[in-house]
Amino acid sequence: METLLQSEAFRTYAICCAILALKVLFSAFYTGAQRQKSRGYINAEDARVFGKGGVEAGAVESAEVAHGLRIQRNDAENIPTFYALGLVYVLSGASPMGAFWYCWTYTIARVLHTVMYINHWQPWRAICFGIGVACQIGMAASILF
Amino acid sequence: METLLQSEAFRTYAICCAILALKVLFSAFYTGAQRQKSRGYINAEDARVFGKGGVEAGAVESAEVAHGLRIQRNDAENIPTFYALGLVYVLSGASPMGAFWYCWTYTIARVLHTVMYINHWQPWRAICFGIGVACQIGMAASILF
Amino acid sequence: METLLQSEAFRTYAICCAILALKVLFSAFYTGAQRQKSRGYINAEDARVFGKGGVEAGAVESAEVAHGLRIQRNDAENIPTFYALGLVYVLSGASPMGAFWYCWTYTIARVLHTVMYINHWQPWRAICFGIGVACQIGMAASILF
Repeated sequence: METLLQSEAFRTYAICCAILALKVLFSAFYTGAQRQKSRGYINAEDARVFGKGGVEAGAVESAEVAHGLRIQRNDAENIPTFYALGLVYVLSGASPMGAFWYCWTYTIARVLHTVMYINHWQPWRAICFGIGVACQIGMAASILF
Repeated sequence: METLLQSEAFRTYAICCAILALKVLFSAFYTGAQRQKSRGYINAEDARVFGKGGVEAGAVESAEVAHGLRIQRNDAENIPTFYALGLVYVLSGASPMGAFWYCWTYTIARVLHTVMYINHWQPWRAICFGIGVACQIGMAASILF
Repeated sequence: METLLQSEAFRTYAICCAILALKVLFSAFYTGAQRQKSRGYINAEDARVFGKGGVEAGAVESAEVAHGLRIQRNDAENIPTFYALGLVYVLSGASPMGAFWYCWTYTIARVLHTVMYINHWQPWRAICFGIGVACQIGMAASILF
């Protein structure tokens, strides 16, 4: 454990994990806010408890909520892969420099990805996604070879 | 490795991970059971193989299956964040007491979240979700500061 | 850290993580390719930037894209659970043999699951899913007892 605490590569990974976790939680809040704003409830119990003035639950997500859910879905498909790859990469004896570049590039790219997604900015969103994936492929290759 | 085995904080995290994993698998079975019960297949090959008596695949998920899928989606967005945060928190030298409270509170809140979701109990479901998120923010803050 | 590098069980887990990560990324590319082929855009900005010749964004995913998204959703629900369980199992002092069988069986089952899903082969897809889940239950039981 002491070795891990002294490992600069692990520290980098740890800080990036915490930032990404807060980003993921932010996206959950974002979707929730869209749901309240558009009063777009799907669960009948949500409409009853949170929708004031007799809103009824719909069968399909409102456009704003669906947009928020797509952001969360993209995160759910991509970020856990980083959690695993980054950890294994760092625990396999990555150099502090390698960990620094891979982890920070990935983290910044994913934060920007959400900013771009919220603001409907293309092709910047796709570029951020691509940068994140490139980091993941680089780390996977480092582990395998 | 021996250090990890002797670490009480890591043991707590390990047991909570195993419980959460079984909870996630339970939700997959739950959705599958709803699909069989409502005979709500989306993939044509599923309807052919699992739907007796010439059921056809639909274009939209049945209400029961969609309900199960929302439980799984909420898990997929939230629980991997705990896997990563909890591990980093514990490996960064968390006290056994800190790990105990964060890990068990999160784990119990998420198990109850599923119970509430299945039974359509609000605002209890939202409260369980909030408690889980509070644990995650606490661990992220511990890592960052 | 040196102990981890020398641990055969950890090496097995690390390689399987890298393979699974590449598989997850492949599924993202697969869905993206289906989207381009079917020109099935949901975000207006995607249709504008990537859809040549005035394609408009739809309100519902095209059948091909929805099929790809179901593959990704199944991964997002199942593979992070392996990342966490496998790591904890290996760090808790798994034998090299136990790690070998659990990790490789799971990894091969999940790669085949995607092959089966893409080709609409049932009940083979369900069998692959079940084998993966059996490995996860086995690892969870090893951690708990």
